Amino acid sequence: MECIKDGSVLTPPGFRAGSSSCGLKETAGEPDIALLMGEEELSAAGVFTRNLFAAPPVAWSRSILPSDSLRAIAVCSGNANACTGAQGSRDAAQMAKTVASLAGCRPEQVGVASTGIIGRPLPMTRVEQGLREAFATLSAAGLSARNAEKAIMTTDTRPKSCAVRFECGGVPVSIGAMAKGSGMIAPDMATMLAFVTTDMPAGAHELHDLLKRCVEETFNMITVDGDASTNDSVFLVSSGRAAVRTNAGAKRKFADALFHLMRDLSMQIAADGEGATKLIVVRASGARNRREAVKVAKSIANSLLVKCAVHGEDPNWGRIVCAAGRSGAKFDPGDAGLLLGDVRVLSNGIPTGENACEELKKDEVRIEINLGAGRAAASVWTCDLSKKYVEINADYHT
Amino acid sequence: MECIKDGSVLTPPGFRAGSSSCGLKETAGEPDIALLMGEEELSAAGVFTRNLFAAPPVAWSRSILPSDSLRAIAVCSGNANACTGAQGSRDAAQMAKTVASLAGCRPEQVGVASTGIIGRPLPMTRVEQGLREAFATLSAAGLSARNAEKAIMTTDTRPKSCAVRFECGGVPVSIGAMAKGSGMIAPDMATMLAFVTTDMPAGAHELHDLLKRCVEETFNMITVDGDASTNDSVFLVSSGRAAVRTNAGAKRKFADALFHLMRDLSMQIAADGEGATKLIVVRASGARNRREAVKVAKSIANSLLVKCAVHGEDPNWGRIVCAAGRSGAKFDPGDAGLLLGDVRVLSNGIPTGENACEELKKDEVRIEINLGAGRAAASVWTCDLSKKYVEINADYHT
Repeated sequence: MECIKDGSVLTPPGFRAGSSSCGLKETAGEPDIALLMGEEELSAAGVFTRNLFAAPPVAWSRSILPSDSLRAIAVCSGNANACTGAQGSRDAAQMAKTVASLAGCRPEQVGVASTGIIGRPLPMTRVEQGLREAFATLSAAGLSARNAEKAIMTTDTRPKSCAVRFECGGVPVSIGAMAKGSGMIAPDMATMLAFVTTDMPAGAHELHDLLKRCVEETFNMITVDGDASTNDSVFLVSSGRAAVRTNAGAKRKFADALFHLMRDLSMQIAADGEGATKLIVVRASGARNRREAVKVAKSIANSLLVKCAVHGEDPNWGRIVCAAGRSGAKFDPGDAGLLLGDVRVLSNGIPTGENACEELKKDEVRIEINLGAGRAAASVWTCDLSKKYVEINADYHT
Repeated sequence: MECIKDGSVLTPPGFRAGSSSCGLKETAGEPDIALLMGEEELSAAGVFTRNLFAAPPVAWSRSILPSDSLRAIAVCSGNANACTGAQGSRDAAQMAKTVASLAGCRPEQVGVASTGIIGRPLPMTRVEQGLREAFATLSAAGLSARNAEKAIMTTDTRPKSCAVRFECGGVPVSIGAMAKGSGMIAPDMATMLAFVTTDMPAGAHELHDLLKRCVEETFNMITVDGDASTNDSVFLVSSGRAAVRTNAGAKRKFADALFHLMRDLSMQIAADGEGATKLIVVRASGARNRREAVKVAKSIANSLLVKCAVHGEDPNWGRIVCAAGRSGAKFDPGDAGLLLGDVRVLSNGIPTGENACEELKKDEVRIEINLGAGRAAASVWTCDLSKKYVEINADYHT
């Protein structure tokens, strides 16, 4: 498997992307509508937020997926179309209808996603105009993907994309993706959105199972502030264009490549968390089972004190073990070990006295706790907590 | 029941307090040793942190309580004596032994508590000297209580105390308390500590049951940053001096007064959270059961986005419902209502359009969500999240 430099959702054959600006964002002219089209029908799956206040676009997409005949996904950013009641549901359906009439398909063949401010109705006249304009720009050229990546951004400071390629019996297969971050990001900009394309032939239900498994260990393992938004959505769509035999070996290669790509995107999202200056990789090992490993890793990754310490480049292991100790996982503190980067700071529950200051100065800080209670492990990605985060989220008025 | 202005742990008869400075804190001369003595044997109970990395002083106190013959509690602040291994256990026991030899009792009659930096051994020569000096200052005068309140502080910006009085059959009974906050506070200053005294006659096990129940609805309902420390301890001790008949009516009055006092202390601790400028009271009602009400209230109270919005005085209800929706509690968003102070901003899941800006400008901000799913309710106290919090916790180096 190889990573493709400058790869995108258009790396796999069979897709087109378009974008436009309809004025949903504060700055005039910023792109806010993205359209992803299959040249023919796509097999498609989606995984969505578990938040009870799931937005109307999530409800719409959930209702039509998995599907073996998806044609397009329409995205708007700047307005989440969340907490908008019956009108919001009509608007989400109308977005699908508008694209369907342009593409000559049924509305149920069009997925919808939104991200942005909660509680405001979409200005539908402008959104429909935006969708028409985006449709007119549809193309398979790399630049179209770059523009679409920008059109789905909200408080992201940079676009996020990734593509990989592998071979099955000499035939190249590729997977491409774009995403925006991260967790529940603000000012009110709900949502992590991700769109993954591939030419690997696969049925919708197969894609769904695979996507669900990969999300569990990638997107569900990132946290910026512990908030799950009303709009989180991850789509996986296949054009089936690669002429490969889909035997067990090919499927395994595809699963590995998909996992790799989704992990890469997850790390990009965590590293670009609001106000972030560092990526933090937390790994908990030696747990009795995976559930407890996740508990410990997330407890550390969500600890404000740990995130502040990393921001201050302080190798403050006391805060880390404290977060592990309150996680609810069962282990004997006297068996626990802790590494900051490559430096062992705790061994059998006792400080080693080693100095880990240099490890904290890196852009990517690794925290590895071994509980000494079993063989299960889990990794979580997060970022540091800075004054900038508070500034972004407090100095903004609805 | 009445609140006693300037009341303290010395309001109930039968107690003495002392304090001293032995150099555990950065600023020379700051008091860091506090001693609370019974004039005679006390009935006593304690409730402690559930963190697996519970500190040696917690292990010591847990092992001797409940007790019907406690004589004293020794506290040091500036050093948590946590993650200090076997030496830490010996040091906690030595603190009890030192006080026991001064008071002429057994070490098992002395409780111990510590708060401060994690992972450093106590400088025992200085601590023992400090305990001797504190013992020499023991007195029942109000000023001794004021000094003890200061001696247990770490990053607290103000001392916290409270006292109440009620009558049983014409006989006055009182309860007094001092505490330090709050959650896991930093720089590394682990711990919420609270010491409650009373002259209400009660056995140790009775005190224990009552304390546990009250802690569940008071101290366990405050959160500054979601971190439970290695050292959290709440003690309840009785001199039994009040000559009252301890019938059911008297016990109910005592329980009510204790709950009132502990709730008052909890709110003081939350309001003095690190960097806090506002107290936030979150109430979730209409839940299917209390566990789910707590889940919703804590999910809102721990949401960084909600805390930042309150700091910015922004009536950002989208963040509040989002936090409720991801809490794991079961309810229909279409039945949910939300009040900010006295202003209804959401009704049956739909925004009312009411302006709640003025409510956010208050020092105490009330958030009330009704889930419309049942009759259970819960209240949680927290504070806003400011740049100051990040500053305190990032710009400090171990």
